[in-house]
Amino acid sequence: MEQIKIIIAGPRGRMGSEAVKLVTNQDHFELSAVVDHKYDGMMLSDLEGFHSIHNVPVYSNIETCLQNVQADVLIDLTTPEVGMHHAKTALAYNVRPVVGTTGFTTSDLEELERICQERQLGCIIAPNFAIGAVLMMKFSQMAAKYFNDIEIIELHHDQKLDAPSGTAVKTAEMISAVREEKSQGHPNEKETIQGARGATFNGMHIHSVRLPGLVAHQQVLFGSDGQTLTIRHDSYHRGSFMSGVKVAVESVMTQNTFVYGLENILE
Amino acid sequence: MEQIKIIIAGPRGRMGSEAVKLVTNQDHFELSAVVDHKYDGMMLSDLEGFHSIHNVPVYSNIETCLQNVQADVLIDLTTPEVGMHHAKTALAYNVRPVVGTTGFTTSDLEELERICQERQLGCIIAPNFAIGAVLMMKFSQMAAKYFNDIEIIELHHDQKLDAPSGTAVKTAEMISAVREEKSQGHPNEKETIQGARGATFNGMHIHSVRLPGLVAHQQVLFGSDGQTLTIRHDSYHRGSFMSGVKVAVESVMTQNTFVYGLENILE
Amino acid sequence: MEQIKIIIAGPRGRMGSEAVKLVTNQDHFELSAVVDHKYDGMMLSDLEGFHSIHNVPVYSNIETCLQNVQADVLIDLTTPEVGMHHAKTALAYNVRPVVGTTGFTTSDLEELERICQERQLGCIIAPNFAIGAVLMMKFSQMAAKYFNDIEIIELHHDQKLDAPSGTAVKTAEMISAVREEKSQGHPNEKETIQGARGATFNGMHIHSVRLPGLVAHQQVLFGSDGQTLTIRHDSYHRGSFMSGVKVAVESVMTQNTFVYGLENILE
Amino acid sequence: MEQIKIIIAGPRGRMGSEAVKLVTNQDHFELSAVVDHKYDGMMLSDLEGFHSIHNVPVYSNIETCLQNVQADVLIDLTTPEVGMHHAKTALAYNVRPVVGTTGFTTSDLEELERICQERQLGCIIAPNFAIGAVLMMKFSQMAAKYFNDIEIIELHHDQKLDAPSGTAVKTAEMISAVREEKSQGHPNEKETIQGARGATFNGMHIHSVRLPGLVAHQQVLFGSDGQTLTIRHDSYHRGSFMSGVKVAVESVMTQNTFVYGLENILE
Repeated sequence: MEQIKIIIAGPRGRMGSEAVKLVTNQDHFELSAVVDHKYDGMMLSDLEGFHSIHNVPVYSNIETCLQNVQADVLIDLTTPEVGMHHAKTALAYNVRPVVGTTGFTTSDLEELERICQERQLGCIIAPNFAIGAVLMMKFSQMAAKYFNDIEIIELHHDQKLDAPSGTAVKTAEMISAVREEKSQGHPNEKETIQGARGATFNGMHIHSVRLPGLVAHQQVLFGSDGQTLTIRHDSYHRGSFMSGVKVAVESVMTQNTFVYGLENILE
Repeated sequence: MEQIKIIIAGPRGRMGSEAVKLVTNQDHFELSAVVDHKYDGMMLSDLEGFHSIHNVPVYSNIETCLQNVQADVLIDLTTPEVGMHHAKTALAYNVRPVVGTTGFTTSDLEELERICQERQLGCIIAPNFAIGAVLMMKFSQMAAKYFNDIEIIELHHDQKLDAPSGTAVKTAEMISAVREEKSQGHPNEKETIQGARGATFNGMHIHSVRLPGLVAHQQVLFGSDGQTLTIRHDSYHRGSFMSGVKVAVESVMTQNTFVYGLENILE
Repeated sequence: MEQIKIIIAGPRGRMGSEAVKLVTNQDHFELSAVVDHKYDGMMLSDLEGFHSIHNVPVYSNIETCLQNVQADVLIDLTTPEVGMHHAKTALAYNVRPVVGTTGFTTSDLEELERICQERQLGCIIAPNFAIGAVLMMKFSQMAAKYFNDIEIIELHHDQKLDAPSGTAVKTAEMISAVREEKSQGHPNEKETIQGARGATFNGMHIHSVRLPGLVAHQQVLFGSDGQTLTIRHDSYHRGSFMSGVKVAVESVMTQNTFVYGLENILE
Repeated sequence: MEQIKIIIAGPRGRMGSEAVKLVTNQDHFELSAVVDHKYDGMMLSDLEGFHSIHNVPVYSNIETCLQNVQADVLIDLTTPEVGMHHAKTALAYNVRPVVGTTGFTTSDLEELERICQERQLGCIIAPNFAIGAVLMMKFSQMAAKYFNDIEIIELHHDQKLDAPSGTAVKTAEMISAVREEKSQGHPNEKETIQGARGATFNGMHIHSVRLPGLVAHQQVLFGSDGQTLTIRHDSYHRGSFMSGVKVAVESVMTQNTFVYGLENILE
């Protein structure tokens, strides 16, 4: 594979520091520079936790960085506001952005899409980089064409505040886009204790389990006469996101359009 | 093992016909007679579905049956009213009852207990003969002494009317008897779609999944720092009840007291 | 949906009788005739188990049947030899075959493909009609592009003679077609009891569990840093095949080529 | 609950540092001193990682420690040789040992048992402190009295060298002690790929799954006519051991005999 030159914005964050590890561990990836709002002009090896990574300059200004460093891809793991500015600037310098933040507005996304089209460049915005989770959602959507009856069980540690999880709702939305509308369960079904049948989303049911010890898990169950199909994702730690970053970087090099969501580049 | 002579009441019912199979297939069991409200005076081999089972007389009256046939155990799979009459009559003839119906009143149970004590005879009433389900409940109760955080997921076919299932509620009750009271989940936990966190029972949560294809399944999840323990029972068909009947028959021969619930004879 | 007129060959077999149920229960399906090597000239309602299904003639000869009855699709659930003859004859009469038998030779398949091309007609041969199982295999193949490390666990009743199951081997073959070759596990891994790591297939591992009570189940596990993805299919009874027959019948009406394997018509 | 005064030997090890956390976080536990072969005479707050834990002296010699510090329990998380010396010395000072190391010889265990009997003191040696894992083994042994057919699937990260895992073998041994001997599966069962049916242990089968992403998991499956029972333990990180240490400390205070294995104090 050809060498891909990469700039990482946000290298000291939780995701960013994993991304630095990823890029420096891949033979066909090369870390050209990092963008960090502090530490302009230093070397990455001067920063705590990165002492062994040599010859990588730190810039605080994305434009200065792009003027001085040759790169193919920008991995941005900062914030939506900063990420939008970084992505637009990168495209102006013919560098393809891979952005891992959520919270972009619709007009942001439309603007990026327009720029990508004008410049015929790839750009990937991915709210979820865990490839297993994205495949779970994609497969669930595919299976929903053949199975009308679907229940989602998501299981998380008991410090999680909201139920159902964002991933469960996203899964249900993706399924709803293709599933023939149906109110599941027996029409005369009765809850003898309120809530037993879970949350209802377009006739499907979502159940949120919370227990100490759990990390982040979800299973989607499909049933029809005589059979069930189950798709389950277990996430044990943050490292799980990095496989998705790798795929996105490789994919963005071959794209010349804007892509929102990892599910659209997984075949 | 010594031969055990058995009378079965209700041989043509769904459970009863399985019990006939069980008793005739066990080397140390012997089917002495059956009690059926129809067909008095015939032989079991005259009845549809039993043509190959020879030398087993049919009685419609339990007392006549007990006067004419020597037996050790009565397996009763009829109805609560009939079952109560059968059990009392059997004990009067020194025959130990194994009864598989639910719906006995508290005074029924107390009366049977008193008779067992007077006559020093065993008698087992078991609302659930699926040994795996009973072990699941028993183990869940044991685990609850060490794990305070518990969620129950029960999964059934979508023709089931009530949620949660009777087994799930029974499990939660057995757990509550030993578990240190606790309201689970984060104190500020919030349902963005109502019902997501399931039914609440003494601070535990119960989730009811309904899908075509499923039969009858339950899993109990226990969580604590860094670990989870899961106990799951899958019931695929009625045959699952027969292992419990076998254990009950063998056990009642060594008992001289009244026992309610299979969990109390499993060690 | 337009009405689809259907002939079923082999209506008294285990699969065939389920197919009769399926076709007569669907509003947009119509059972035009059945082909049965016995009972030529009778009506289906004369045969045991089908008394309530009226106006469906029985033919023993496929050609006579096709000359007398107007049909769109032939569902064949007989044997490979008979099935091949039936399929070719049906195509000659512009009737599209959906065939659920295994054991066709390569030259059989090539001949059918050629005929379909000449006549511009659809024909589906499906060794496995359980749509959940086919999706499990298809999704496993898709996931294998992103996960190099894969283990298959298949679980069946203990009367099964061969291990691993045909479905497990088929899954491993489909995965191997796209997976980057890898010998999994630690290079110095050691079995202290022989067989612990299961069967090896192109570096993947397959484990066969056999227990009374189980029916037919398989799960495919994918692992990478910090996450696992699991795809599981549970088959509880033969009815599970019928959803696949339905999809195949609907799909074959829109096809004008030969298709081998349900996975190729599921999107 | 009464306050329990505790000495920890091996506070800087992986288990030991978790134990320090546990003891200092429990209201009814009090950390009186630590034993560490380095750092004699210092305070625990002088050592890296323990700066916030005040007033806990460090001793290198167990005897000196016991002469100077009043304690109820010694938690030893060192090595078998050191652990044996520590346990004997503690008992001589009427301090009850809770020891979490494996590798004691039979004569060591007999000697400790004898001392406990003489002095009427409790002492617990536990090779596995993960309470969920110990319950899984205990429940498996109980279930094996009612289910003759058992398969064990253990799943670990792919850096593990030996298969099956020690816990799987221990589970199989505990089951074998009560299970009626049986060679499982169909008598004519055939492996078409060698190893498919896993490792055989007294007629049971053990399957070892290895995948990146996994941590340490085991499930024990029991099958009989129409039903299966599954007991599963998932261990996500070392913290899972601490619940067992807590239970052992509380239990040892009420014991006056020697106990080997946590399963013998869980009711």
